[in-house]
Amino acid sequence: MMKSANLFADLPGNLPEELIEILVDTPDVRIERIVSTGHASPPGFWYDQAENEWVVVLRGKATLAFEDEERVLKPGDYVLIPAHRKHRVTSTSEAEPTVWLAVFFGGKTAAGAE
Amino acid sequence: MMKSANLFADLPGNLPEELIEILVDTPDVRIERIVSTGHASPPGFWYDQAENEWVVVLRGKATLAFEDEERVLKPGDYVLIPAHRKHRVTSTSEAEPTVWLAVFFGGKTAAGAE
Repeated sequence: MMKSANLFADLPGNLPEELIEILVDTPDVRIERIVSTGHASPPGFWYDQAENEWVVVLRGKATLAFEDEERVLKPGDYVLIPAHRKHRVTSTSEAEPTVWLAVFFGGKTAAGAE
Repeated sequence: MMKSANLFADLPGNLPEELIEILVDTPDVRIERIVSTGHASPPGFWYDQAENEWVVVLRGKATLAFEDEERVLKPGDYVLIPAHRKHRVTSTSEAEPTVWLAVFFGGKTAAGAE
């Protein structure tokens, strides 16, 4: 009934793809743990999401690019990415797993406003 | 426009009350950073919330009590507390600040189902 676990457990050392684990999934909100090991978005690819995303890096290091700026995220650094704000992951650490926690919300509202 | 900061910045060493900072506040979801330094719920007090709460301890240590069990949370440990599941904070570390990240959601649904 009460799902519990540890965000830093079972960190894979190397993966061909990013590992995405959905921790909460409701009509209002989706919470994901994402583990990257050197992954980046494909060249020229941009996320353009209907949902808002609040995301924090908890371990490792990542670089997030927007059309007009780039941000390096270290453990504890968070950013709120509004729906349809284009972004991509330029790089993640190859030295250690990068653990992200992402909260997606407001998708219905955003879609309705399109 | 894009609010960003660090969850581990500006950690107070000692506070008379818990420090609650609201990072995201929308009709669907509320995200809070909570900093405890030895705080606990008052004796006999139980949280009985209309919203679901997904909560993780990111630094420090805390003990969370439910009516039928008790859980020690260390960094990375998370738990999903359904709406109206009574709980209280038995203790938090006095040696260092305990940093919680809490995501509240589904309040409207829970309230409508009462």
